[in-house]
Order: sequence, then C-alpha cells, then structure tokens
Amino acid sequence: MAEDTQKFVEDLSEQSDDFSRWYLEVIQKAQLADYAPVRGCIVFRPYGYALWEHMQRLLDARIKATGHENAYFPLLVPESLLQMEAEHVEGFAPQVAWVTHGGDEKLEERLAIRPTSEAIIGKMYAKWVDSWRDLPILINQWANVMRWEKVTRPFLRTTEFLWQEGHTAHRTAEEAQEETLKMLEVYRAFAEEDLAIPVHKGVKSDSEKFPGADRTYSIEALMRDGKALQAGTSHNLGQHFAKVYDITFQDQDGERRHVHQTSWGVSTRLIGAIIMTHGDDAGLRMPPRVAPVQAVIIPIYKKDEEKAQVLAFADRVHAALLAEGVRAKIDARDNYTPGWKYNEWELRGVPVRVEIGPRDVAKDSVVFVRRDNREKAFVPAAEIPARMHALLVAMQDDLFERARSFRAESTRSADDLRTMGAILAEHRGFVSAHWCGDAACEAAIKAETSATIRNLPLDAAEDPGPCVRCDKPSARRVLFAKSY
Amino acid sequence: MAEDTQKFVEDLSEQSDDFSRWYLEVIQKAQLADYAPVRGCIVFRPYGYALWEHMQRLLDARIKATGHENAYFPLLVPESLLQMEAEHVEGFAPQVAWVTHGGDEKLEERLAIRPTSEAIIGKMYAKWVDSWRDLPILINQWANVMRWEKVTRPFLRTTEFLWQEGHTAHRTAEEAQEETLKMLEVYRAFAEEDLAIPVHKGVKSDSEKFPGADRTYSIEALMRDGKALQAGTSHNLGQHFAKVYDITFQDQDGERRHVHQTSWGVSTRLIGAIIMTHGDDAGLRMPPRVAPVQAVIIPIYKKDEEKAQVLAFADRVHAALLAEGVRAKIDARDNYTPGWKYNEWELRGVPVRVEIGPRDVAKDSVVFVRRDNREKAFVPAAEIPARMHALLVAMQDDLFERARSFRAESTRSADDLRTMGAILAEHRGFVSAHWCGDAACEAAIKAETSATIRNLPLDAAEDPGPCVRCDKPSARRVLFAKSY
Repeated sequence: MAEDTQKFVEDLSEQSDDFSRWYLEVIQKAQLADYAPVRGCIVFRPYGYALWEHMQRLLDARIKATGHENAYFPLLVPESLLQMEAEHVEGFAPQVAWVTHGGDEKLEERLAIRPTSEAIIGKMYAKWVDSWRDLPILINQWANVMRWEKVTRPFLRTTEFLWQEGHTAHRTAEEAQEETLKMLEVYRAFAEEDLAIPVHKGVKSDSEKFPGADRTYSIEALMRDGKALQAGTSHNLGQHFAKVYDITFQDQDGERRHVHQTSWGVSTRLIGAIIMTHGDDAGLRMPPRVAPVQAVIIPIYKKDEEKAQVLAFADRVHAALLAEGVRAKIDARDNYTPGWKYNEWELRGVPVRVEIGPRDVAKDSVVFVRRDNREKAFVPAAEIPARMHALLVAMQDDLFERARSFRAESTRSADDLRTMGAILAEHRGFVSAHWCGDAACEAAIKAETSATIRNLPLDAAEDPGPCVRCDKPSARRVLFAKSY
Repeated sequence: MAEDTQKFVEDLSEQSDDFSRWYLEVIQKAQLADYAPVRGCIVFRPYGYALWEHMQRLLDARIKATGHENAYFPLLVPESLLQMEAEHVEGFAPQVAWVTHGGDEKLEERLAIRPTSEAIIGKMYAKWVDSWRDLPILINQWANVMRWEKVTRPFLRTTEFLWQEGHTAHRTAEEAQEETLKMLEVYRAFAEEDLAIPVHKGVKSDSEKFPGADRTYSIEALMRDGKALQAGTSHNLGQHFAKVYDITFQDQDGERRHVHQTSWGVSTRLIGAIIMTHGDDAGLRMPPRVAPVQAVIIPIYKKDEEKAQVLAFADRVHAALLAEGVRAKIDARDNYTPGWKYNEWELRGVPVRVEIGPRDVAKDSVVFVRRDNREKAFVPAAEIPARMHALLVAMQDDLFERARSFRAESTRSADDLRTMGAILAEHRGFVSAHWCGDAACEAAIKAETSATIRNLPLDAAEDPGPCVRCDKPSARRVLFAKSY
C-alpha cells in the first residue's frame, strides 16, 4: 500500500512542468470525468457531476431571482428551421450532428442535434407572442447540446456538453440591451462570488460575436498557465431571429412589431475554469461554495482499542457538521493509510481536512487542515461547526484574492506590436493594448502573436492611443491574450 | 373580456364526456406543454417544467437518501455497443434515432441517440470495477432519451422524454435483488406521498419485461378514465449486461466474477399521471407538494381608492406566505376580471385561492378557497401562514384518499373470461383475476379483452383458483387492465 500511495502522488505531473498534462491527469485521478467510447465525449463521474450540480443550484437561483423561468425545448431541430437565419446556419452547420434515420425509416428531413436553441425557440415564441402584454418572455433552459468539434479537451471543448441557455424576447431594443447586460452581470457575480474566478466583463469584437447576434458580451477569465478562457457569453440578438421566425406583437399603439431578443449561456466548460484557476501541484482546490465535499474527516488510529473510540468521536463530529449544513464526509476505509487519504483528498481539492486521532479524542478537539495553504488549527469540539463555517468563507475569499493577484501580475500593457509579442511569448497573460477597431488589424495581430482580442472591457478608462498595428486612433485599450 | 372568460371555460371539454380530448386541451390551456415542430416532441412550457422541477427535487432527494450519486453519460451510443446484448438491441433498435453525419462528414459508425443507457454505462462500469471493494456502484442519471414512437401523446409517450435512470452494480445476486425492490419502494413512496397517486407494486409478466432484464417490477396507477398507467419500473438485470460488457471483479476469495446489475427509471410520463389521476371538469388539480404555485392571491376591487388598499394588503399576505416557504403568487393583472382569474387558476390546478377584497381588508382577514372541493374559509391575517400549511397538507392527503377510493371502486374480481370482458367493457378499471403463468393465455386474454397483465402484485394474498382462460391452477390473482 505504501508504494501505491507514493505512486498515486508521484504520478501527478507538476502544474508548472506540463500544465496540459497536469490538467488531464488531475481530471482522471480526481475522478471528475472519464473518456467515453464516443468521439469527443466524456462521462461526468459522480464527483464531477456533483460539482456541476452545486454550480447549477447556485446559478439557477440567480437566474430565477432575476425573473426567469425554466422550460425545456426539443433536442432535435429540423434542418429547414436551422437554415432560416443565414449567419446562424453558416456558423453552426459545420459542427452539427445529423439524425437521418428513425428506426429503419429514412427521415424526409434531416434533424440537427441542437448546437444551440435559437431556431427552435424562435419558432415557438412566434406562436406564443401576440400582444405587448405577452412580453417580456424570460425563459432559461438547462440542456445538453452538441457541436462536432475536431479537437476536444475534457470540459473545455467536448462534442456534447451541458449548459444553460437563456432566451428572452422584449418589446423594445432598450429592454433587450438592459437584459443582455443584466445577465452578463449575473454571470460575473456567479463566477466571482460562487466560483472565486475573477473575470473581465466586456464586448467581443465583431469577428468573435455569436452567429446571428447584433452584439456579444463575454466574461473572460485567466487560467494559471496564462491563457484566457471565455467563461460565459450574453448576446443581444436584435431583431435578426424575430424577422426570420416572424415573432411579432401588437404594440400599445396598435402597430405590429418584431420583438427584440437576447440569449446567454454558460456551460460545463466552467468546470475546466475552476480546475485551471485554482489547482496546484497537489491537485484540485475546490471553491468551498461549490465543493461537492467541503470537509473530509480522517480518523487516525493504530491499536484496536483506539479505533472504536476514534471512530465514535469522528461520527459525532460528522453528524454535527451535517446538522449545520456542511457537506462533510468521513473516510473510514480501513485499507488505506491516513497518509494515502490525505493525498487523495488533497488531489480531489476538498477544502478542509479534519484529522482525529486518539490524542484529539482525549482533548475533546480536532485538527483542521486547510487545503489551500495547509495551515493547521486545533479546534475544540464545541467550536467545530462555527469555526468550519468561518473557515470555508475565508477560504472562498482567499481563493478569489489569490486568483485576482495572479491576474494582476499577469496583466501587462503594450504600446507596440513587438512588445506585445515579446510579453506573450515570455509570460502569456493579458495584454492591454490599443486597437483601432479594424478586423484586418485584429487578424494581423493574431497571425503575429497568436493572441486574440478577448474583449473590450466595459470598465476600460478613456485612454486614447494609437493601434498597435496601424497607429490609427483608439479611445480605450482592449484585452488581448492567447486563449483556450 | 366577459365573453372571453366564458369562452375559456366553456372551451374545456368535460372529462366525463371525452377524456382524451379533455387531456389534450387541459395541457394546452394550462400551458403545461405545447406541440413542437419536430415529430412526436413537445415543449415543456415554464408551468409544466416547474412541475417537473419539483418532482425532480423530491425524487432526487429520495434517490440520494438511499445512497445513490448522480452522474452523466453521453447522449450517443455507438451502434456496435448497442448491438452487443441481443435481447436489448432487438427491443430497442426499431425505436432508435440514428446519427449518421457530423458536420459534412459521414460517420464510420452510426451513433444511436440513447433510448436508455445500459450499453454505454455497462462499458464504463467494466473500466471502473476491478475489486469487490469497488462495489456496489450506485449511480443515477437525469437525462433526455429518445424513442422513435409511431403514436405519441404529450407526456405519456413522446419521441424525446426526460427521465432518471439508475444503474447499479453489485457483488451478489441477493444485493441486486434487494436494490431492485428498494428502488421500487422509493418509487411507490414518491408516487403516493409526493404525487398523491396510489400505486400497486408488482412484478411484470415475462412478456412485458425490459429487454435484457431477468425480472422487471413496476408500479401501476389507475387513471380517472379507468385505464392503467405503468408509472415506474425497476429491473433486476442479473448478469446479462455484465457478461456482454465484461464487468468483472476480483471477489474476496480471489475469484473473478461478473457483477449483478439493476436499472430503474421514471419519466415525465408521471406528469401525465398527475393530470389524469387528479384532474376534473374544471381542469388540473395539482398535488400541493409538487404544485409550481401552491397559493394564488387574487385582489378584488372596483374603485380606485379600494385598489391601493387591497393591493397593499395583498402584497403583505404574499410576502408573509413567501417568508414561510409557501410557493405563493399574486395575480395583479388589471386586464382580467377576478372571475376570469378564478377560472384560469382553477384550470391550472393551483391548490388554494386567496381572495382579498375591501371588506377583507377592513376585517384584517382573507378568504381561502380550496381547488379540490371549493370549500371556503375566512382566515384572520395573523393565522394565514399556519392555516395555509395545514390546508396544503390536508389537501395532499385528501387528493390521495380520493384517488384511492376511486381505485377501490374501480377494482373488481372476475373468475372467468366472459365476466372479465364484461367488466372491462362496461367499467374498465382493474380486474383481479387468476392467470396460470402461461404467455399463450396472457396473449389470448389480451386478444379477447384488450386488457394486459399490469403486474403480479407483491402484496397479493395466497388465493388459489383456476386461470380465467385455461383453468390451470394459479396461486394468486394478478391485475389486468386496459392501459396507456
């Protein structure tokens, strides 16, 4: 067993050594996911799915608190329906999985497995909306979607993934724009407060916007390898889909008008963001608010007479934590050493380890060990639940602050293309630079540096300067980075 | 507006007049679901989906309380994998939707949209199980599945539906059998306690068992038109799939053995069961425990000076109910009369209507009206939350008792085929009769009466008698019915 323990730990690549290998290994070893016997698909194992359930629960509450209701639309979209919006179909057709047969019968029309649901939802909204009194429609859907990706990577880009997609319809352009920004803010708050991932809110450049949208906003996060990750998007769809699917209403003045729409989504890609924002060489570090297990209790004993005593005490601590709403687990497996268990639960990112040995029982106390910095604290039994709650809150804050410091250290300004290239080659991270707004410059910068415009931050200060490529004037800096 | 109100109510077919039309109309009018532009698929509208969310929440808690964890497996199953278990593929192949293209590229192997997930899960379990210490595996999945049905009907039988499917693997046959029955009992408790639907637990005849199972158990409910509905199934899969997918483990004695498996599921079909168990001529009657809206507050006023007073009072009542965890809603729309609102919320099945008019404000009280029997009660403001909780509990019990009485009245015994045929022709309902166990008799009885064996109830008393068709001996009566 001792060799096994050693092996289990040694086997994990160091993050700083090979980030990509570390990422794939930690997913497997922590049992978040496994590869499926279907191209580009993964299995969400119970530990990974539990993480997603906690993320869903918190985001769902935020979505409902802003007045939205959940619904469910069909998985399959008739080809003719998908083809009605030209930009949309052009953007998604190459990635669509097509159903052509039902049982033995060839279908008259091919059906797409939804890559996103604007088309089918637009069709339904046309049926449901008739008067201004029917607006706004504020609907969200939790669903699986499929995009036939060439290169896949667990959580970050998989053929099938899980997500939520909000689809709203409004009377006016102003309301649609307000909704677009409101949901972007919901995503920011969710990412920062629940997942402890700092993000930049901003608008995407035209070349990166959603096929069929007027404008796409995103939240952008920075991973520990210095690459950026688009962590959520909110689209102002304008009246594109409304015109195509004929979603009209009689307005207060008696005129018939097209609705204004938005759509917005985040996906299981955020699990990848959690792993790559917080993980370290020992494995995952789960943000306490979404951690499937917040505290793991490890009983420690050698002799048989110790065992009964320690286990009984551990059971009481376990019950006390559960009663206070802490997601606690006791690891009483007798075929693993405490050392093995420490390593395993550290790798799985459980925020707090509670060690209980015979001496702790005698003193009526336990030892808390923080996953993030391994700090130990001796905690009298009576104080366990209160101290645990305080520690989980503190750890959530600390993870966020640490990620924010890392992002600050990894954000640099560049005023010319050569400096920008050098920064990106040496450090990666975000580069704040001037861009004239021209797609040709955007493409040229990308060709030269492999970096793309992540977004034009909404909070960017007025700061005029010349475009790093063409010297034409730019009012504000935008964020460049290499990205996932 | 007055005519509209009239029309809305008159338009609903009477249940006793045309049950099937009533069913389809109430689904549309209550906005539970709508037809989708995809063959055999429905859209779950927010009210219908909210009902499903409450059902999910309660059942998920029961599934987790019995030690199961959720996971998520891929939507698509390679054809070769599905074909490995002969009975299974024979049972499902005619109903499979096939993906043949990804983008522009023709796939080398067709992929089935999962009709159920035994195949893909079996493949993964083979990878995960190695030692007896890895057992049991107790996993559940909430997912969409697809079966290419010829004749569809909202909720009861749709091409795509939502469900949960549990898949477990055990060391011994005894453990697997225990699990099969445990989950059947979870389903019974969920149906009876949460949905107020009385059910019979029993074992299916061999001709009705799940393709690939050793034995299938079901819970069977009775709809108000006298037809039975299979409301959930739990399968003892034995070692069929374990042998096909090679799921083996090293047992405590060092021998390598195949695991014993179970699978079990309930689906959105249960929404149909709620509608058809509790609905009446005025529309739905939602069981309080799963009702999306448990209480709707209707402000009543004529003059403008009344309006402000009544609305302010209604807001206070609303807040008090929400604070006590009651799912309350206030209907302050000013373009509908109170009468219209009464009809609409009755049709949508909201358990309690809270009427508030100027006289109620003056007396600091409100009027509760029960949806099930329209009983009124005057309730002082201070007592509102406590009285509401008590009423919701009482209504839940009453709905269950009423359904149980109906089932008792609709259950008859028959000792020969002619009597059985006459009962089914005149009353439908359950017929308790003797059957020898022979599939030929089962088929002949079905041909003659259109009734099938729903199940062999687990609690059936020893009661020997001759088979209604062939006179061969039978130890216990089984349940026949026409069914959905």
